[in-house]
Amino acid sequence: MESKKTRMEKDSMGEIAVENSRYWGAQTERSLQYFAIGNDKFPREMIRVLGLVKRQAAITNTELGLLDKTKETLIVKAATEVIEGLLDDHFPLSVWQTGSGTQTNMNANEVIANRANEIAGSSLGSKSPIHPNDDVNKGQSSNDVFPTAMHIAAAETIHKDLIPSLTILESKLKEKSVSFQDIIKIGRTHLQDATPLTLGQEFSGYAKQLSYSLERIHRVLPSLYRLALGGTAVGTGLNTHPNFGNKVASALAKETGIPFVSAPNKFEALAANDSLVEVSGVLKTIAASLMKIANDIRWLSSGPRSGISEIHIPENEPGSSIMPGKVNPTQSEALTMVCAQVMGNDVAVSIGGASGNFELNVFKPLIIFNVLNSIRLLSDSSRSFAKHCVEGIEANEEKIKSNLQNSLMLVTALNPHIGYDKAAKIAKLAYAENLSLKEAGLKLGFLTAEEFDLWVNPKQMI
Amino acid sequence: MESKKTRMEKDSMGEIAVENSRYWGAQTERSLQYFAIGNDKFPREMIRVLGLVKRQAAITNTELGLLDKTKETLIVKAATEVIEGLLDDHFPLSVWQTGSGTQTNMNANEVIANRANEIAGSSLGSKSPIHPNDDVNKGQSSNDVFPTAMHIAAAETIHKDLIPSLTILESKLKEKSVSFQDIIKIGRTHLQDATPLTLGQEFSGYAKQLSYSLERIHRVLPSLYRLALGGTAVGTGLNTHPNFGNKVASALAKETGIPFVSAPNKFEALAANDSLVEVSGVLKTIAASLMKIANDIRWLSSGPRSGISEIHIPENEPGSSIMPGKVNPTQSEALTMVCAQVMGNDVAVSIGGASGNFELNVFKPLIIFNVLNSIRLLSDSSRSFAKHCVEGIEANEEKIKSNLQNSLMLVTALNPHIGYDKAAKIAKLAYAENLSLKEAGLKLGFLTAEEFDLWVNPKQMI
Amino acid sequence: MESKKTRMEKDSMGEIAVENSRYWGAQTERSLQYFAIGNDKFPREMIRVLGLVKRQAAITNTELGLLDKTKETLIVKAATEVIEGLLDDHFPLSVWQTGSGTQTNMNANEVIANRANEIAGSSLGSKSPIHPNDDVNKGQSSNDVFPTAMHIAAAETIHKDLIPSLTILESKLKEKSVSFQDIIKIGRTHLQDATPLTLGQEFSGYAKQLSYSLERIHRVLPSLYRLALGGTAVGTGLNTHPNFGNKVASALAKETGIPFVSAPNKFEALAANDSLVEVSGVLKTIAASLMKIANDIRWLSSGPRSGISEIHIPENEPGSSIMPGKVNPTQSEALTMVCAQVMGNDVAVSIGGASGNFELNVFKPLIIFNVLNSIRLLSDSSRSFAKHCVEGIEANEEKIKSNLQNSLMLVTALNPHIGYDKAAKIAKLAYAENLSLKEAGLKLGFLTAEEFDLWVNPKQMI
Amino acid sequence: MESKKTRMEKDSMGEIAVENSRYWGAQTERSLQYFAIGNDKFPREMIRVLGLVKRQAAITNTELGLLDKTKETLIVKAATEVIEGLLDDHFPLSVWQTGSGTQTNMNANEVIANRANEIAGSSLGSKSPIHPNDDVNKGQSSNDVFPTAMHIAAAETIHKDLIPSLTILESKLKEKSVSFQDIIKIGRTHLQDATPLTLGQEFSGYAKQLSYSLERIHRVLPSLYRLALGGTAVGTGLNTHPNFGNKVASALAKETGIPFVSAPNKFEALAANDSLVEVSGVLKTIAASLMKIANDIRWLSSGPRSGISEIHIPENEPGSSIMPGKVNPTQSEALTMVCAQVMGNDVAVSIGGASGNFELNVFKPLIIFNVLNSIRLLSDSSRSFAKHCVEGIEANEEKIKSNLQNSLMLVTALNPHIGYDKAAKIAKLAYAENLSLKEAGLKLGFLTAEEFDLWVNPKQMI
Repeated sequence: MESKKTRMEKDSMGEIAVENSRYWGAQTERSLQYFAIGNDKFPREMIRVLGLVKRQAAITNTELGLLDKTKETLIVKAATEVIEGLLDDHFPLSVWQTGSGTQTNMNANEVIANRANEIAGSSLGSKSPIHPNDDVNKGQSSNDVFPTAMHIAAAETIHKDLIPSLTILESKLKEKSVSFQDIIKIGRTHLQDATPLTLGQEFSGYAKQLSYSLERIHRVLPSLYRLALGGTAVGTGLNTHPNFGNKVASALAKETGIPFVSAPNKFEALAANDSLVEVSGVLKTIAASLMKIANDIRWLSSGPRSGISEIHIPENEPGSSIMPGKVNPTQSEALTMVCAQVMGNDVAVSIGGASGNFELNVFKPLIIFNVLNSIRLLSDSSRSFAKHCVEGIEANEEKIKSNLQNSLMLVTALNPHIGYDKAAKIAKLAYAENLSLKEAGLKLGFLTAEEFDLWVNPKQMI
Repeated sequence: MESKKTRMEKDSMGEIAVENSRYWGAQTERSLQYFAIGNDKFPREMIRVLGLVKRQAAITNTELGLLDKTKETLIVKAATEVIEGLLDDHFPLSVWQTGSGTQTNMNANEVIANRANEIAGSSLGSKSPIHPNDDVNKGQSSNDVFPTAMHIAAAETIHKDLIPSLTILESKLKEKSVSFQDIIKIGRTHLQDATPLTLGQEFSGYAKQLSYSLERIHRVLPSLYRLALGGTAVGTGLNTHPNFGNKVASALAKETGIPFVSAPNKFEALAANDSLVEVSGVLKTIAASLMKIANDIRWLSSGPRSGISEIHIPENEPGSSIMPGKVNPTQSEALTMVCAQVMGNDVAVSIGGASGNFELNVFKPLIIFNVLNSIRLLSDSSRSFAKHCVEGIEANEEKIKSNLQNSLMLVTALNPHIGYDKAAKIAKLAYAENLSLKEAGLKLGFLTAEEFDLWVNPKQMI
Repeated sequence: MESKKTRMEKDSMGEIAVENSRYWGAQTERSLQYFAIGNDKFPREMIRVLGLVKRQAAITNTELGLLDKTKETLIVKAATEVIEGLLDDHFPLSVWQTGSGTQTNMNANEVIANRANEIAGSSLGSKSPIHPNDDVNKGQSSNDVFPTAMHIAAAETIHKDLIPSLTILESKLKEKSVSFQDIIKIGRTHLQDATPLTLGQEFSGYAKQLSYSLERIHRVLPSLYRLALGGTAVGTGLNTHPNFGNKVASALAKETGIPFVSAPNKFEALAANDSLVEVSGVLKTIAASLMKIANDIRWLSSGPRSGISEIHIPENEPGSSIMPGKVNPTQSEALTMVCAQVMGNDVAVSIGGASGNFELNVFKPLIIFNVLNSIRLLSDSSRSFAKHCVEGIEANEEKIKSNLQNSLMLVTALNPHIGYDKAAKIAKLAYAENLSLKEAGLKLGFLTAEEFDLWVNPKQMI
Repeated sequence: MESKKTRMEKDSMGEIAVENSRYWGAQTERSLQYFAIGNDKFPREMIRVLGLVKRQAAITNTELGLLDKTKETLIVKAATEVIEGLLDDHFPLSVWQTGSGTQTNMNANEVIANRANEIAGSSLGSKSPIHPNDDVNKGQSSNDVFPTAMHIAAAETIHKDLIPSLTILESKLKEKSVSFQDIIKIGRTHLQDATPLTLGQEFSGYAKQLSYSLERIHRVLPSLYRLALGGTAVGTGLNTHPNFGNKVASALAKETGIPFVSAPNKFEALAANDSLVEVSGVLKTIAASLMKIANDIRWLSSGPRSGISEIHIPENEPGSSIMPGKVNPTQSEALTMVCAQVMGNDVAVSIGGASGNFELNVFKPLIIFNVLNSIRLLSDSSRSFAKHCVEGIEANEEKIKSNLQNSLMLVTALNPHIGYDKAAKIAKLAYAENLSLKEAGLKLGFLTAEEFDLWVNPKQMI
């Protein structure tokens, strides 16, 4: 370590040594030393968005006559490298830092300033020609930059990852629903045999859950489109141009293709992160949907010989280190674990969201870390589940047929003809004496064989 | 106990004694005996809705030619008594029963049948002329009745209680925002003194949180408008008329003034309760908003002498059994406790929502009990908070003024003139030597007295 | 309402009318009016304990020479009526009140004072001879009384209800474990057929979960034995005798048979409710155990014809309002719903526990309400589950036998003889061609029929 | 990518290409391809423990005469490299995989086998002389190896990281408690001024919370000492020597210095992960404690001029990118965010723990990932908070003194002398007319100046 070359960087607390190979400055270095907590870092998506915001801020400040063209060009060049991921190694900070995300905002300011100064032929740490606070952070505060980045990163990953993944899963489930539409099977309520439906109908319920998941996430997106930028330190917009917030929001909307707008009330936008709490609530709703589907799939495929076994799922890998030939519903398992995690993340987000004080919520890194994590996990796992499980599901028609024929709940079709009480007697007798429903009905004298065949027809029960 | 007169009621399990004074039948009685768990019962709103559904089902079945007019009249009379609350004592069941709510649906069927038979001059337990299953439950199953009642009860209480309560709170906060619009105060971020804003701006943030809460709950309501009725046992609609679901939904929409529709996919509507999970997610988002506001109010009113004390809240009751004259922010406390409960309820709902299997989610009583509880708690507590706290808030202008004048963060206004680094030095010197900013600035020679007075003007910082 | 006779009661805020039929005073009345939130009240157990504390405080104060004997006698009489439940109607307050529980403590003080004064022949509201604050609350503060009552109520209900209920369930599960000890069945991991075990071994796992649940709750009880009394307002013990806390704790220990002690640090005992957070964490752990067991039971009993159906559970009530003869695992359902609720309650408790400030946590009513609710729900539902479900479980030996014989996972027994890779080939061939393992093994030439019979013996695999 | 050299690895599904530079085999490779979900991997601690288990299993199998000495030596060498972290790059799998952790267990088996074979001069993929299943996994199953590793990893990190970190924080808080023992300050309940205590007493409460946190975690550790090893696939111990479990547990106890034992009931040990749910419940209890302390510290240090400002915390870094000179309580913020995360993690763990079925809980990776994450976060953040915040706290005696002198709640000391009602009148008059308590008391004629000075003495109130 001692052999690494360092330079001195400076902030309002004084000087501090930073490795020469790093673009960050004094405040990032202090954070690195004071917050050695866990291994969690902000994902690429968040760093990218900070670059986007900084680049657009420079352009807008220049348009407003507040930054000269030379500085703009330098900042734009450096910020573009941040956007493109070329400088990811220079964003080393832990999620578990100051609750405003100030240190990560300063990390971006410092890296962009140092890289810009390097491009300009100046030395690292010189803060000249580009100053991290006065130029890169111009007209901004961590307090509006960070929540802006949170909203953009969440909205972008929902658009780019989550919606496409859920759409794929929806479409695979719909495909199965269509191809299974003529397979009549026993229904199950309370885990007990119930009246029949088709396997296609069962899958149509899953597909519908996905359709609603997509509706839900679309419905909540507008909450994320409101950007805090322009509020600066406490929401009043001190030290920024009155048009800055609107102009940057418009430009970011154009650049991303997502209809961002400047938040109408900046006090709310800094002090609360309710929109992300709301989004997290939708993510956990989607998790609840997916958990139900994943569980059904693994139960339906349980067996091979002593389970329900009405469907076959793809055999992707050996299931056991000790039981040869075992194949397990591992895609379902990964998905259900992810769903449990998303529900846990939602609690963390809610606590963080409820814990703001006065002009600023200082649980921001926690909130965005969990929301982005939930988006990532749901996106990846639903895509994996669609591809490696749902796509390959096949009906075990033999087992389905035998289950259907054995069912006692077909008796329900007799209600309109002989009434609930007599129908119940038939079912109970059949169960107790291990008879078929028909045998039991005839034995009780409640109907004729012809009536039974006419009335109890699974095809007409679906 | 032994002196109470009983009659025998009968179901498919056999006979069981029921007190003569009770309208319920065998299945309710069994549930009462087998589920002596806790003290929680479904609230009035839920019982009322079961009456609504049963009445409308009878009317619709009659219109469809499936029930004769005499039976309809009897059922309508008895169901109306359920709706009006006259028979609430006859709904004794615990929430903690079968997970489909079957026992509570049968409770409604039995009470309506017995009361209808009584009206018809027949004896209790006779099941004639009105049979609880064949007539009152005609064309229905617990599996579609219960989730239908869940959606209607949630939608109605949101419309009747929650939205009005939140609207009152929003309007009280807006009023305060307006009346406090000229009071400039110190801002606080990280609990630390920050740049100024007006007290009105601070309250505008709270009001906006309420506006968004209302937007959120309105946005999610359509999910609740989809009714499961028509799906019967597993979603196929076995034993019901194909128009039954649509007709009942339309009639219920007309009756309640809420645009209910028949759920397009009945399999989803029985197997999943995702819409209520989603609604619960919005309720916890509202709880997060309210917790922030309630906390701010109590902190701002903390004191009277050693706290922040920038506002006065109404003194409603003595605060302490030992400290005379103490007044506490008790409305905030009740509200924050409620918010914590709503967040807990949301976890219970999510777990229940995620735990369905195959054709039916059997955590329905848990889900609706918690959702209705959260709605009730948020409605009551936000109304109480509006009326007994927010309405009476007054600014402590003297304290606000003195805080503002002492603030070091006014230095931020100097950034555009002398740069961040010099401004920081002024603030640090003022803090270290207990000087005013002006004194520190002059001592450091960074500006003149005239410049200071021109640049540092709180009125221009908001 | 207007016809009801009232008297004037008085506190430091002034006069307020109270119905003559009620023993409560001014502060209770104010709380009733200002906190019309929800329907939740403290359960009987909590009211009883407040009576216990007040009675013992009076006795102790008299022993310490701080209260005269006449007053003691009066307070003891009135408090005894509170303990015995004779005055429950006079405790009308909502849980959602001040966060210290002050209003409920004052409710107790007022009711005891008024009732004592009535016994003494004085008029209600006279505060003489017994004053609610100066006499009934003597040497106490809500801030130490309420957390004391919380600990006692939780400890008592755990001892009286939860431990006996869990013990019953443990013993029923053990009984089944013993009676099923010779029934060899297929194991299931990942829901997939696995190597065999006995049904008794499976149930021994459940019984062990209960044993550990009991260990867990016993282990955490000492945290509840520490009582806050003696700390008064902020923990310093102002206005109370230095021996008061110790003496009352000893007396309460003697009276209840539970080894309560005076908390060694009263600042912690008022400012934090960590012990109840810890207890709630154990309750949710027990809920997690019970949910697993309840789910297993309902899955094992699923069917009757198209499920796993390896056990029969008692048929307690008809299962369906539409499907005649259906019997559902409703005890499991009630229990799993309760478990979900306990997990939700735990989140509410944790948020409340984390939200204290300075010398007092003011989420106390929330915390104790949820903890007592969780104790009640787990106690009642595990007792119900033991009695109405586990006790009547019978093995379906026919089905168990047929499942076992069909199993492919018996192949695991071949690993030590022919290696994992060959064993896997046998299982895969058997599955693909619907052969028995023996047939597949012989077809592949990996062993002889004799070897197969020698090596693959379920009885030796358990 | 395409240029990378690969070899063919083989498992029961067939052949698959693996990069030559990697030691893993076919099953790891499949998992890598099928589970591209998120970025979460098991931490070092978990990989290390898998090495420990594998090494000890080989030694034990050899002692039992089931593995020859040559194989033992090879496996021990390779496993030691795993333990020492030399092969971490060969453990690439996602947490979000099969719910039994089978793939990670096979990853360990494959890496150790391939590395051992390499040491033996054999080729990678040869499975000879060391076979991953038959030799490395000998007498084991993922189903007992993985929960064994979970318990050891959790117990070790608690011993090595969490307990030392909490002990440091406890000791720093105790130090402060001692050094602040003579500083009398205003107490605060409900955020409102209350009776006085010393700053040392206030900190003694925090220190006690830490003492109890340590007690709690010690109390729960024995649950983790029970190891599943010896149960193999479903708990029966099929294919393992009857002494294997006991011998390995003893050896691991000796090696780690932690008293591990073989779990008395292996069915419970595989099917449930209740002990980790319990531990997680304790971790969230500790989080609740720490959140209270961290919040108090930041509130007490709020200001510098318009907050409570009774203590100074160290200034570690600049607080704001826009407000010069601002210093924020960032260590508190990091800690409170961590606490919220731990509470969220606990919900994920509880859901996972409750979701087991039959002979195996398949939410194991989720559970251990969250438990280890919570341990890591609490360890790091409490250590950071102790070092970078608590250690440097100083009392702001001037502010403390002025707050105390202004306090109205000193009036409480008058209760025993003039009664609660008169004392309340004094406090209210002083507040309304901005008088001192003495002035108000004299004005009301309730006492003399001498009596006031005698009775109201903060030093005697603590």
